Amino acid sequence: MRVAVLGVGLIGGSIGLAARQRLAADVAGFDVVSENLEQATELGAIDRSAGSVEEAVDGAELIFCAAPVSVLPELVRAALATSLQDAIVTDVGSTKRDLIASLAGEPGAERFIGGHPLAGTETAGVAASRVDLFEGARWYLTPTETSGGLFYDRLQRAIADLGARPQAIEAAAHDRLMATVSHLPHVLANVLVAEAAEALSDESERLPAVGPSFRDTTRVAGANPTIWTDIFAANGESVAGAIDGLVKRLTETAEVLRAGDAARIASWHAGAGDSRRRLLESELVGGPLRELQIAVENRPGTVAEVALALGGAGVNIEDMALSPAADMRSGAGSVWSAGSEESERGAEVVRELGHTVTIVDPGE
Amino acid sequence: MRVAVLGVGLIGGSIGLAARQRLAADVAGFDVVSENLEQATELGAIDRSAGSVEEAVDGAELIFCAAPVSVLPELVRAALATSLQDAIVTDVGSTKRDLIASLAGEPGAERFIGGHPLAGTETAGVAASRVDLFEGARWYLTPTETSGGLFYDRLQRAIADLGARPQAIEAAAHDRLMATVSHLPHVLANVLVAEAAEALSDESERLPAVGPSFRDTTRVAGANPTIWTDIFAANGESVAGAIDGLVKRLTETAEVLRAGDAARIASWHAGAGDSRRRLLESELVGGPLRELQIAVENRPGTVAEVALALGGAGVNIEDMALSPAADMRSGAGSVWSAGSEESERGAEVVRELGHTVTIVDPGE
Repeated sequence: MRVAVLGVGLIGGSIGLAARQRLAADVAGFDVVSENLEQATELGAIDRSAGSVEEAVDGAELIFCAAPVSVLPELVRAALATSLQDAIVTDVGSTKRDLIASLAGEPGAERFIGGHPLAGTETAGVAASRVDLFEGARWYLTPTETSGGLFYDRLQRAIADLGARPQAIEAAAHDRLMATVSHLPHVLANVLVAEAAEALSDESERLPAVGPSFRDTTRVAGANPTIWTDIFAANGESVAGAIDGLVKRLTETAEVLRAGDAARIASWHAGAGDSRRRLLESELVGGPLRELQIAVENRPGTVAEVALALGGAGVNIEDMALSPAADMRSGAGSVWSAGSEESERGAEVVRELGHTVTIVDPGE
Repeated sequence: MRVAVLGVGLIGGSIGLAARQRLAADVAGFDVVSENLEQATELGAIDRSAGSVEEAVDGAELIFCAAPVSVLPELVRAALATSLQDAIVTDVGSTKRDLIASLAGEPGAERFIGGHPLAGTETAGVAASRVDLFEGARWYLTPTETSGGLFYDRLQRAIADLGARPQAIEAAAHDRLMATVSHLPHVLANVLVAEAAEALSDESERLPAVGPSFRDTTRVAGANPTIWTDIFAANGESVAGAIDGLVKRLTETAEVLRAGDAARIASWHAGAGDSRRRLLESELVGGPLRELQIAVENRPGTVAEVALALGGAGVNIEDMALSPAADMRSGAGSVWSAGSEESERGAEVVRELGHTVTIVDPGE
């Protein structure tokens, strides 16, 4: 099988590695940054560097466009125009509706099927490529009524062979889903830091060292401007729709809070706990995550000591959050692991190190 | 000095430990849960268990009310009514305005000065008490125009002697500040899980394993219902005000996104990056945090290996986030450390372990 990868960053490079090793494919790569092609060749992610889209897609049966969202329409169009008449063209962009709309009526549009693997971060370069990046990962495909059925079938089998779990979803539904579970948290981070910056200048205050929730929520504020400007521009309509939904909920929440009825507040808060539990359960195979709250000293080595002890006991850390105290010398840490047996074993080994541990069940 | 602690959980217990060791105080403790008093006595957090508020405050010069926000008005009133005529009464509740308003005109109100140490989590019990919990921590005090100046001076010196950094702030300003930087992230977690749960049921979808931002933002959704219902009820007006501010920003953001002007989107996003940088700089002594993005295998021991290597190189981990891939076998990790020298040293040692590392500057 001959594969072309147009754009060899983390995603493109990992597709190349997996295609070569798992599909026994011959992989041609093209990138506007020639260093990326050199690195990809060194890493064994591509067999050959191509000097143009046309050269890369020459003879390819399957073409992955793995460039930033804003250049995808042009890139896909070029790939369709220069590739074999039965070559499949797909992409890995994180929004789908605009791209598909921009290709409507184009020659060869029946050979294009949008895709979006949920793996990797857009920021890492080709050096971070891994053959198993897509192992077990959801890979959305967005066929339309004009997509050729045989093209779709071949594409989804290739995706499965790369190790991923292909799943068809309507492009608009994909974009709405991503707007809510991926793009909206970034919007909230952005507006929350703006609000906090204003509140602090109002109170002539410095940011107090509050709990970890502010830091968690605002960690991605303003992150990766190029990528996120693209995503917000490409999925603006869906994100704006998700914002509308959130504004409605926030307005209702403000009303509940102003009414000051503790029973209504409690019921609103409990509802959020239920929703979170449902979401966690749908996400995780190994049972809901349980949190170990640990009082730790924030010196070099403490985190290692705890993590090492957990690893030694076979407890896998799914997630971790530290909240240093204001002096940065002490603090509390939380570690999440799946399943009650594993978390109890984890609590035991951390207690043996002399730390205080509390197990918190999800939503409690 | 004689001190009374009314309510011996994590905060009350830690006050007892610090008062005994650092103020050489004789500490009496009272709690409605007798097991807490027994544990506090065993831990050396109190010298004596009292059977009532009256017995605990008998002869005390300084009285800390460390109970949930909803019972503080009653507890403070009882402490004022039964204590010496020159005893100072303070509290450690996370909202201040309602409490102070409820005490207006009460006999002895000039002896009450509200307080709020930014240390510890409300959920941990007395067993997690530490003598150094308040070391270097901000401890807000909210004197009013009726507060006795000498009482305030004695209280702030005692707080400093406990190891904390006392700072006076107007009660309403305190509540607004906490509403934005502490309570609002919890509101956002709650509304975001509700929105996601609805989006998923609309699309008949399971939650895809998206990036860490959704998980980070929603980690506290529905957490600790008793405590948070109290806080939302007590600070409802300020939180509702903060929600109003956020709704305004969100509505503007939806307009920017719908207009689809990439330059405006980029400028909005860059502004958030600037705000975040300013907030981080105001929070941290050791310079802005820098992120090390690390590609790791998600097996027991990997986190330990990385953390141990960082610890061994004297690199202090201020924060950490893992985002396992869908198969839970591999993933990406991020570690935050302060200062560019420290993060470069950190990147080097992690690279020596064979992992791929990218250093991300704040806001980039």
